[in-house]
Amino acid sequence: MGKTYIFGHKNPDTDSIVSSIVMTNFEKKLGNTDAVACRLGAINKETEYVLNYVGIEAPELIEDVADGEEIIIVDTANPSELIPNLSNVKIKKIVDHHQVLLNTSYPVFYRAEPVGCTETIMYKLYNEYNIEIDKKIATLMLSAIISDTLLFKSPTCTETDIKAVKELSKIAELDYETYGMDMLKAGTDLSSFTIEQILSLDAKAITLKDKKSVIAQVNTASIPDVMKMKSELESGMNKMIEEQGLDLFMFLITDIVNSNSQVVALGNSASIVEKAYGVKLENNTALLKGVVSRKKQVVPIMTENA
Amino acid sequence: MGKTYIFGHKNPDTDSIVSSIVMTNFEKKLGNTDAVACRLGAINKETEYVLNYVGIEAPELIEDVADGEEIIIVDTANPSELIPNLSNVKIKKIVDHHQVLLNTSYPVFYRAEPVGCTETIMYKLYNEYNIEIDKKIATLMLSAIISDTLLFKSPTCTETDIKAVKELSKIAELDYETYGMDMLKAGTDLSSFTIEQILSLDAKAITLKDKKSVIAQVNTASIPDVMKMKSELESGMNKMIEEQGLDLFMFLITDIVNSNSQVVALGNSASIVEKAYGVKLENNTALLKGVVSRKKQVVPIMTENA
Repeated sequence: MGKTYIFGHKNPDTDSIVSSIVMTNFEKKLGNTDAVACRLGAINKETEYVLNYVGIEAPELIEDVADGEEIIIVDTANPSELIPNLSNVKIKKIVDHHQVLLNTSYPVFYRAEPVGCTETIMYKLYNEYNIEIDKKIATLMLSAIISDTLLFKSPTCTETDIKAVKELSKIAELDYETYGMDMLKAGTDLSSFTIEQILSLDAKAITLKDKKSVIAQVNTASIPDVMKMKSELESGMNKMIEEQGLDLFMFLITDIVNSNSQVVALGNSASIVEKAYGVKLENNTALLKGVVSRKKQVVPIMTENA
Repeated sequence: MGKTYIFGHKNPDTDSIVSSIVMTNFEKKLGNTDAVACRLGAINKETEYVLNYVGIEAPELIEDVADGEEIIIVDTANPSELIPNLSNVKIKKIVDHHQVLLNTSYPVFYRAEPVGCTETIMYKLYNEYNIEIDKKIATLMLSAIISDTLLFKSPTCTETDIKAVKELSKIAELDYETYGMDMLKAGTDLSSFTIEQILSLDAKAITLKDKKSVIAQVNTASIPDVMKMKSELESGMNKMIEEQGLDLFMFLITDIVNSNSQVVALGNSASIVEKAYGVKLENNTALLKGVVSRKKQVVPIMTENA
């Protein structure tokens, strides 16, 4: 039997990395000993904090998978965030909490729910299949849920996510609020990155109606700290707009303590931001009060107003 | 709150009808009192047998759903088998065992597994959510599984399907083998249908690479009985080929007792059948030994050889 490569989306966040590890463990417990945890990009600081805390290695970095091989996809169902030859491999399972954007020519195990995090679904799967959740797995799972829901402050967070974290924190034997805030803050450390890296840490290429856009996001405990780099960030954004022929580059600086986002928007379609949120961009920037979730509070309203 | 319309594919088979009833009951037990079981086409003889046996009404016949309404899709994820304005309604859930062919612009509850029947997944869902399966629901569920797996003879049948039927038959208090064969035989009664109706009872429009095709199937306990109508069937098929500009019309007469199919193939691309199965069409027909599943034994191999 060949290997089963298990990975989440490019530009992996904590949920993508944790899901590949947790799903690989799940498959192995089900007898699929050839499951391999993989990733399609670099580990971010927040995820690094989690992996160090738990004491495990990052999944294997890959760029693609040979034609005909078997894969399991976690935390996305968007072909543009996956390997280039997706249609030539065999998708065995998909576990996700985003929109459905891929098609298959064969029946597949597909498990998606509109909850805040893939790990909330994985937690259910472990319970359904009576697979033990040990301390490490529990810590990984709750880390991803706290990451995706910004410690329950994101509007994507559901009661199911909160319940899962509370139950998992008992197995993990930790105070999830203290641990969670430390983890989120670890993710806000931008000191070692170049401007280009900051802009692509968590960037999604999204077409808003016909407007070619990139919406990038960083978390911070202090918006002013990040805004000190504003002119360098703008130069980097303008360079990417030119190189990639973008209509819009939206950079969200999300305050995880107060749950607001400062947006910097450039490109010919920057005024969509003004229309969508009823704000005035001054020097290309505005505060979006209460906005923390790209998925729920940015992509839909920006699409509507594009 | 508006209603939630719950339905399966056009040309509904027993699984589609049963799934809409069983899912509606599931939603009601979860507190969604506005769930309505619906169907997108006429009830076939086999399903009629099941509904009469259980003593319940057929779901409501509908053609579409108003824009903005909420729906749950069962036993398909193929937009061409659903309502015309699918992109204007809100898909709340999908439970299916076919390929993934639809996309959404929002996260959705999606539950698919490569098992023989949607009801095998519904059976799991009832258990996961601790919802009681009464005698009627158990009978409906096992009927659909027996129908889709041809009493476990289809290669689409898995151990999970068989286990579900065995467990359900205890709740239903019936001998599933006797009941199942009676039910399947009820579905083979073609006496009240016109030729056109027979050809469209369970017909799927499928594009094999670039070849516009229809693959229709009927079950029988006696291939010669159906073959008595061969020349009338061929006239009907030729009429549809001309009217719809088809490259191929494949009519499968499936012997549910001996697990073979007699194929009648017409159209410019009929020779794909010869290539795919290594048979010679004589007078447009050939016996395909061991072939009973359109999904597993016809569509993939015909696509490959198209």
